[in-house]
Amino acid sequence: MKKIEFSPLFWPVKLEKESILVLDETNLPEKENYLKITNYRQAVSAIKKMKARAVGQVILLMYAFLRLYQENKGKKGLEVTLQKAAFEFNRARPTLSFKFLTDMVLSWHSQGRPLDKAIPAFLTNLKQKRINQARQLADLLQGQDKVLTHCNVSGLLPLAAKIAKSQGKKIIFYATETRPYLQGMRLTAWELALAGFNVTLICDNMVAWLMQEGKVNKVVVGADNLAQNGDIANKIGTFQIALLAKKFKIPFYVFCPPASSAKSGKDINIEIRPERELFKLGKKVMKLKGVKGYYPAFDITPAKLISKHIHWEG
Amino acid sequence: MKKIEFSPLFWPVKLEKESILVLDETNLPEKENYLKITNYRQAVSAIKKMKARAVGQVILLMYAFLRLYQENKGKKGLEVTLQKAAFEFNRARPTLSFKFLTDMVLSWHSQGRPLDKAIPAFLTNLKQKRINQARQLADLLQGQDKVLTHCNVSGLLPLAAKIAKSQGKKIIFYATETRPYLQGMRLTAWELALAGFNVTLICDNMVAWLMQEGKVNKVVVGADNLAQNGDIANKIGTFQIALLAKKFKIPFYVFCPPASSAKSGKDINIEIRPERELFKLGKKVMKLKGVKGYYPAFDITPAKLISKHIHWEG
Repeated sequence: MKKIEFSPLFWPVKLEKESILVLDETNLPEKENYLKITNYRQAVSAIKKMKARAVGQVILLMYAFLRLYQENKGKKGLEVTLQKAAFEFNRARPTLSFKFLTDMVLSWHSQGRPLDKAIPAFLTNLKQKRINQARQLADLLQGQDKVLTHCNVSGLLPLAAKIAKSQGKKIIFYATETRPYLQGMRLTAWELALAGFNVTLICDNMVAWLMQEGKVNKVVVGADNLAQNGDIANKIGTFQIALLAKKFKIPFYVFCPPASSAKSGKDINIEIRPERELFKLGKKVMKLKGVKGYYPAFDITPAKLISKHIHWEG
Repeated sequence: MKKIEFSPLFWPVKLEKESILVLDETNLPEKENYLKITNYRQAVSAIKKMKARAVGQVILLMYAFLRLYQENKGKKGLEVTLQKAAFEFNRARPTLSFKFLTDMVLSWHSQGRPLDKAIPAFLTNLKQKRINQARQLADLLQGQDKVLTHCNVSGLLPLAAKIAKSQGKKIIFYATETRPYLQGMRLTAWELALAGFNVTLICDNMVAWLMQEGKVNKVVVGADNLAQNGDIANKIGTFQIALLAKKFKIPFYVFCPPASSAKSGKDINIEIRPERELFKLGKKVMKLKGVKGYYPAFDITPAKLISKHIHWEG
């Protein structure tokens, strides 16, 4: 493989001189616009509003700390400033293990490693690890595989498909739309088609029938949190796809982040998002008097349903 | 029970002097408007566009034949006229067994039964049978049951809940939104809330997690086609809910129509609808260049996954 062209989602955050530019994923695929972020509070807010998600959150957090460090380097109270930012990030979204990342930043600082060295080094390593994960998946795939995916794994699928193509394998994809935020439709189907791959959209309720008809033979998803026993938390709907894959004897692969401090899935808090978000269809909000909504944003898939964890340090 | 108040969906078609009025279910819950239909061709078109669905299709078909009969009674060629209409209805939607209904109409006629007697008698019986089905479900339910449903069963759930309430049982409901047409959101959640019942909307990908959390203990759905061996065709997504219910040992009940001529689910054709319908979010259509869509409108749930068929002649 020569030069790799990445999906816009593979590395959706850019560091500029005066600010951080974050791809606003809630506007895709209609608008590819970047939010300008100048401090960590704005970064936390963008994460809460799901403007940035998945790997974008990690890169954004790191750049936010980098800017905070650069602005306060040499000043009194730098350590407290970093701790305050860490505290805000940690409570941004209950299911995600930001603490793992903020602890890392704080420990670099307390060990005397300058953050303007440690953070760029971490991000270079992150990019390399991600390319490596895509390569691991490509090696697992076979020619003519029909891969079902759910939600979005930030550019890893187009990359894996390109690597697989260079190995002479032709992969086709099915993407669930992933209600209510439609990451599968807006992000995954979009980025796969953009990269020239064969991708078909289905609704979240078509998974079992697709399997029954033999239209898919592999499932690949990501994980927002990996517990130490191999359980994962991922976008709501992952668990039922894993149960159905088991039933139909279809391998179920998971791109994993580094393990969090959770011993098992039971230790992972599931974020319940506002019910009004369920009634959103595109930009419009349906009004249904007297109807409640329940929106757990993630679910837990136990390790025993996972055929292979595609590990970070793989 | 005294006077029953029905959901607007329980009997969504009305016969007027000069026309048939059909509740346009695609505009609910925002507008409760009725389409005026004056001939069978318009009726077939309304069915193809899913303006009328489920029991509404049956009533509409019957009224369309009634009008056709009244207009052509005593004229030459009445039999051929009826046969032509039957032919058009039969091919309106591949998965539904309109042939069962049109055969019935044609056989009444060939037996010399005047259709202006036979059709009203059939519809009176239909209404009574449906009330009876709601009563059967009410008898199966227990106080404090938490019932999950998918798509829409045309007023049977509010009716069953009212009967159950009169028996001292308090039932709460979860409705899947049922993408892409959102019958669960627009029709089921709407009609249950309208009747004053406790109903919570979820996305189609939340079913397994809801079961895992113990939030539902019964599933009730309808069927568009019942095969002779007890397999059913119903709205896409029914099959995976049935598989998940089995996994979580949750009873799975099905309101059934009379059996069709299909011996098993394998004999039922699955309607594949236009892929553009998948990209519709409310009134808006998402544009995704190069992305295909796959939209089987129904799936087959095998008899072995069904805890109880709530039969027509129950």
